[in-house]
Amino acid sequence: MIIYLAGPDVFLPDAVEIGRRKAEICALHGHTGLYPLDNAASHAATSASLTIFKSNEAMMESADAIIANLTPFRGPSADAGTVYELGYMAGRGKLCLAYSNDPASYANRVARLQQVAEATDGRLIDAEGLTVEEFGLPDNLMMIHALDLHGSPLVTPSEAPQDIWHDLASFEACVRLAGPRAQRFPGFTN
Amino acid sequence: MIIYLAGPDVFLPDAVEIGRRKAEICALHGHTGLYPLDNAASHAATSASLTIFKSNEAMMESADAIIANLTPFRGPSADAGTVYELGYMAGRGKLCLAYSNDPASYANRVARLQQVAEATDGRLIDAEGLTVEEFGLPDNLMMIHALDLHGSPLVTPSEAPQDIWHDLASFEACVRLAGPRAQRFPGFTN
Repeated sequence: MIIYLAGPDVFLPDAVEIGRRKAEICALHGHTGLYPLDNAASHAATSASLTIFKSNEAMMESADAIIANLTPFRGPSADAGTVYELGYMAGRGKLCLAYSNDPASYANRVARLQQVAEATDGRLIDAEGLTVEEFGLPDNLMMIHALDLHGSPLVTPSEAPQDIWHDLASFEACVRLAGPRAQRFPGFTN
Repeated sequence: MIIYLAGPDVFLPDAVEIGRRKAEICALHGHTGLYPLDNAASHAATSASLTIFKSNEAMMESADAIIANLTPFRGPSADAGTVYELGYMAGRGKLCLAYSNDPASYANRVARLQQVAEATDGRLIDAEGLTVEEFGLPDNLMMIHALDLHGSPLVTPSEAPQDIWHDLASFEACVRLAGPRAQRFPGFTN
C-alpha cells in the first residue's frame, strides 16, 4: 500500500531524517511511505510554494492512504496543512489514518493556552467569547469522526511521550492498521 | 448553486444569526447557503458530535461549492474543522472559495503570537525551533494554493475590518465569485 505521510514533521530541524525514519517503518510493514520533502530538490524555484502544493497533491493522488500527524501545532489543534490533506484524502475516498502524540481533550488543550469559562448561556467559552467544543474528543469533531468513518479511530498514547515530535510509536501503530484494514477498504483508485 | 458555509462562525455567541445573514446574502445572489447549525435541533442526542459530523458531511455532499471562513482561529491558522471541510470539498471536486478577514502573512501572524528568529541554517523558526512557513501567503500553502487551483484565490480585505467575526464584505465577495465561475467549473455531481 502507498501511504502519504502528512504532518508538521516537515517543519522540524531534522525534517529529512524523520521522514526517512517514517518511510523505513512503512517498508518494514510492507508499505511505501511518500514524504512531502522527497520533492525538496525542486523547491528553490521562484514559485516554490505552488511547486510544493502540486507535488504534494500528486503524491496524495498516487497514494492509497494517508497517515496524518495531528499532534497540536502552534495552538490547540493540528497543523492546518495536515488537516487540509486529511480532508482531501477523505474526499478522494482514500483510507484515512492519523495519530496525535497529545491525548488531551480539545477543551483541556484550549484551557492550557488561555482562560476558558462557562458563559451565562452554559457554553464553555474562550477569552474572546467563542465556544470551545467540548465533546471529550482530542480535536475538532470533523477530523476525529472522519477517521472513525473513513479509516480507523485516531491513535493516541495513554500519555504524551517525552519528545512529542520524534516519538514514532503511535505512527507505527497507524502503519500496522494500514495492513489489515486495506483489504476491507479498497479505496478510490483513479 | 448550493453552497456549504464553513467557518468558526458556529462558535460565535450569535452563531445562528450570522448563519442567517450568510444564507440571506447567498439568496440575494441566487444561491442557496447551507449552514451547519441548520441541523442544530438534532444535536441533543448523546452521540451529538457524530450526529453533527454526519449532517455536515451530508450537507457537503449535497452542495456544489464551499465558502470557507479562514480567518485565524485560536492561533495563526484557520479553524481546523473548517480546513478539513475545505480539503474534503477539494477532494470531492467541488468549487472551493474562501476568505480571511485577516490579510496578514502567515509569518507575521506567528510573530504576533510568539518570538520568531532566524536559525543558523537560515530557516525562520518559532520558539520551539520549528520552521515558520515564509512564502508571503496568509496561511499554510496547501489551503492557499488549493483555492488557486480548485476555485478562486483567497479573498482578503486590504486591512482587517474592525469586527473580524461579523464583517461579511469578503464573504459577499466570495458569493459573487460563485456566480460567474460556476459556469466555467461544473463541479462533481454525484
